[in-house]
Amino acid sequence: MVTRRIVELLRNGQPDESVTIQGWVRTKRELKDFSFMEVNDGSSLANLQVVLDASLPDYEQLLKKINTGASVEVSGTLVASVGKGQTIELKADSAQVYGEADPETYPLQKKRHSFEFLRNISHLRSRTNTLGAVFRVRNACAAAIHQFFQDRGFLWIHSPIITASDCEGAGELFTVTSLDLNKIPKTPQGEVDYSQDFFGKPAYLTVSGQLQAEVMAMAFQNVYTFGPTFRAENSNTSRHLAEFWMVEPEMAFCDLEGDQNLAEEFLKYMFQYVLDRCPEDMEFFNKWVDQTVLATADNIINNEFERITYTEAINLLEKADKKFEFPVQWGIDLQSEHERYLAEELFKKPLIVTNYPKEIKAFYMRLNDDGKTVAAMDVLAPKIGEIIGGSQREERFAVLEERIQALDMETDSLWWYLDLRRYGTVPHAGFGLGFERIVQFMTGMGNIRDVIPFPRTPLSADF
Amino acid sequence: MVTRRIVELLRNGQPDESVTIQGWVRTKRELKDFSFMEVNDGSSLANLQVVLDASLPDYEQLLKKINTGASVEVSGTLVASVGKGQTIELKADSAQVYGEADPETYPLQKKRHSFEFLRNISHLRSRTNTLGAVFRVRNACAAAIHQFFQDRGFLWIHSPIITASDCEGAGELFTVTSLDLNKIPKTPQGEVDYSQDFFGKPAYLTVSGQLQAEVMAMAFQNVYTFGPTFRAENSNTSRHLAEFWMVEPEMAFCDLEGDQNLAEEFLKYMFQYVLDRCPEDMEFFNKWVDQTVLATADNIINNEFERITYTEAINLLEKADKKFEFPVQWGIDLQSEHERYLAEELFKKPLIVTNYPKEIKAFYMRLNDDGKTVAAMDVLAPKIGEIIGGSQREERFAVLEERIQALDMETDSLWWYLDLRRYGTVPHAGFGLGFERIVQFMTGMGNIRDVIPFPRTPLSADF
Repeated sequence: MVTRRIVELLRNGQPDESVTIQGWVRTKRELKDFSFMEVNDGSSLANLQVVLDASLPDYEQLLKKINTGASVEVSGTLVASVGKGQTIELKADSAQVYGEADPETYPLQKKRHSFEFLRNISHLRSRTNTLGAVFRVRNACAAAIHQFFQDRGFLWIHSPIITASDCEGAGELFTVTSLDLNKIPKTPQGEVDYSQDFFGKPAYLTVSGQLQAEVMAMAFQNVYTFGPTFRAENSNTSRHLAEFWMVEPEMAFCDLEGDQNLAEEFLKYMFQYVLDRCPEDMEFFNKWVDQTVLATADNIINNEFERITYTEAINLLEKADKKFEFPVQWGIDLQSEHERYLAEELFKKPLIVTNYPKEIKAFYMRLNDDGKTVAAMDVLAPKIGEIIGGSQREERFAVLEERIQALDMETDSLWWYLDLRRYGTVPHAGFGLGFERIVQFMTGMGNIRDVIPFPRTPLSADF
Repeated sequence: MVTRRIVELLRNGQPDESVTIQGWVRTKRELKDFSFMEVNDGSSLANLQVVLDASLPDYEQLLKKINTGASVEVSGTLVASVGKGQTIELKADSAQVYGEADPETYPLQKKRHSFEFLRNISHLRSRTNTLGAVFRVRNACAAAIHQFFQDRGFLWIHSPIITASDCEGAGELFTVTSLDLNKIPKTPQGEVDYSQDFFGKPAYLTVSGQLQAEVMAMAFQNVYTFGPTFRAENSNTSRHLAEFWMVEPEMAFCDLEGDQNLAEEFLKYMFQYVLDRCPEDMEFFNKWVDQTVLATADNIINNEFERITYTEAINLLEKADKKFEFPVQWGIDLQSEHERYLAEELFKKPLIVTNYPKEIKAFYMRLNDDGKTVAAMDVLAPKIGEIIGGSQREERFAVLEERIQALDMETDSLWWYLDLRRYGTVPHAGFGLGFERIVQFMTGMGNIRDVIPFPRTPLSADF
């Protein structure tokens, strides 16, 4: 017996086909001579309507067990549906309940639950319409990322999760240790005796795989990371996670223009891919969660991205007939209000801002000839804000070393990174994209905790 | 100017095509009126031979800069090669060196380096033939995994890396903390005051995503994880890593037979995919690293896997005309020597052993009707040994609860896992595959540290 997925039956099923399906009951409606139940198997937002005739064996018993959340297997014949909302339904020849769900205690009854409530039952929330749609879109988005890069000859690189250096200086790190926190061994000087720790020195969870991606790009030309990254930042907001996934392509023999081209092509591809694979889910979000998500996707897919320099952006902001909370002047980091003005009000489409002041950007970004700016880029989109940050990297040994020293960073732990500039250095560039951010904006979900299966946030690491 | 990848030119390049390539010099050979250099861009094992005519501008200067490891860009015309080993070569019209590599200090000169030496320069080792081939195969293998599951409607699930429970009881865990190890806050009772830690309780790095995959399978039917997992095991062997990637599919409405079918199909697919995408790399391994890797791949792809029960396996081992170091009797865990005998000597092909004694398997495996064995499976392959471990999961609430209590495990932290059996439970099954193990066996590499870009092992978390 081959069972069929409901998404496939709803798309291609023909009347008179004999099929078997398996899934979970969403609702049941009892009538006099027969009953309906809606069954969902996770393959699609839509349920398959099943007709249970009173002539089925043990009909009464069966109906008692069929409640929201129960798992069922049904065999029967597809028939054209006379009801609204579906073209096809399944007339059951036999139905079996695998596992019941007590309506007195099962938390997911047929009503609208708040996302906050659902977060407390993360082990069940994927069985709701919204979270189901979120994780199908999340999967499609992840699949799109691999497809995009593999098609273009990029190698997927697994950058390390545990790292002994905070090279990016990205701030608050989680410590990884095999020591017993109750009895930390100390040196005679009273310091932690790391020689007894697993790695023999302090170790942390990675904040970025970029530096390691650069290593690999110097051997394979085009690579990308796609893996978990971490911030021990005590931010209880709807846009922060302590554990999130990041995508970081890195290209050798590439400058800032090539970087911008890739970022634009990549974003368009990802949105189109998800629209193609999850049309029902995206329509659901547009109808029930955020009525701009389809327009946003359309805007990204069908517009050539505007490209301006930071200096031009500052000029435009200074000329704007608008009062900003954060005053505008050359040298400031662009705030969300500035970015939104540029993307939403002025250009009304995605734009890429390039060549930021070096003071507000990371040490590894390539110094421009003006001596003041670096070859950085931020991709800004309407409704979304900054979605991608990237740069051409400083490939010149002397310039990079000088920059590291000027910032008082320790060069010792960066010896290998500097080696890349010592031996066969090439212009190269890359960018980073926060995966949950993109899923959040694609779906319009208000809280980033609702686009990752098991969110990790301050005081919360359940499930 | 569009540059071309060398793999593509070697496969499809035609004489008289004008092309530009970029890459790194592997070797140079100076003759009287012209010189040869071999350029590699990471897209293939093979280099492209470039002919530099003495009539090129600044020829003498250029040659001085062209040393092993230097990065170059060359434009010219493809010509049929008269030399051995390649059918096509590039006659340069212009050549440019981006970054030199001082032959006095560049560690990768044209000679054979030990893998141990190369591990100390993990930031450069991907530029060698062997490690280059390893990471291309690794990428193909990873791409195969996604392709296989996505084609079959499985959702990629990102299970959490940080977890507050050691549910699997898989042993030594890494602790994750935001506390300063130098000043661990204590409660009045002298215990660690976890209320001040990021998650408000002890947190660890995950050892498996299976339990969370089960959650998602109960909503989407078929899912898989593919992510990093961790063991703080002080094992300095050629088969252990502290950080490694694992693949864990999980299927609802699936029994042990379906699990076996998927495992067999999956392994065949993965080996075939890599053979198709990386034929030169695989031939390289077969020639230089392990002369059995192609035969092993062939054995896996072209044989129907034998399927026997643990009890049958014990009978066969007891009848074997062979002395084992570990004596054979019903109840023992199969040792490597037993597994190898079965796969290599007796069946000479992959086999799946099922229904192990419950005492030697995990708590979540489904109890068989005999009350003695559980619906576990191990896939064993010649030359490889155990490559996959899986099981049908215990879906019956009462049986699972009893088992957890019998093992003295605390049920409190497993409340959500038990909920899956309370509400809409279904038969389900899955398995786990260590990603680096499969890459190791596919390539024949002797040490698992050489199949992951930046290995994490006791006392080592460099780069």
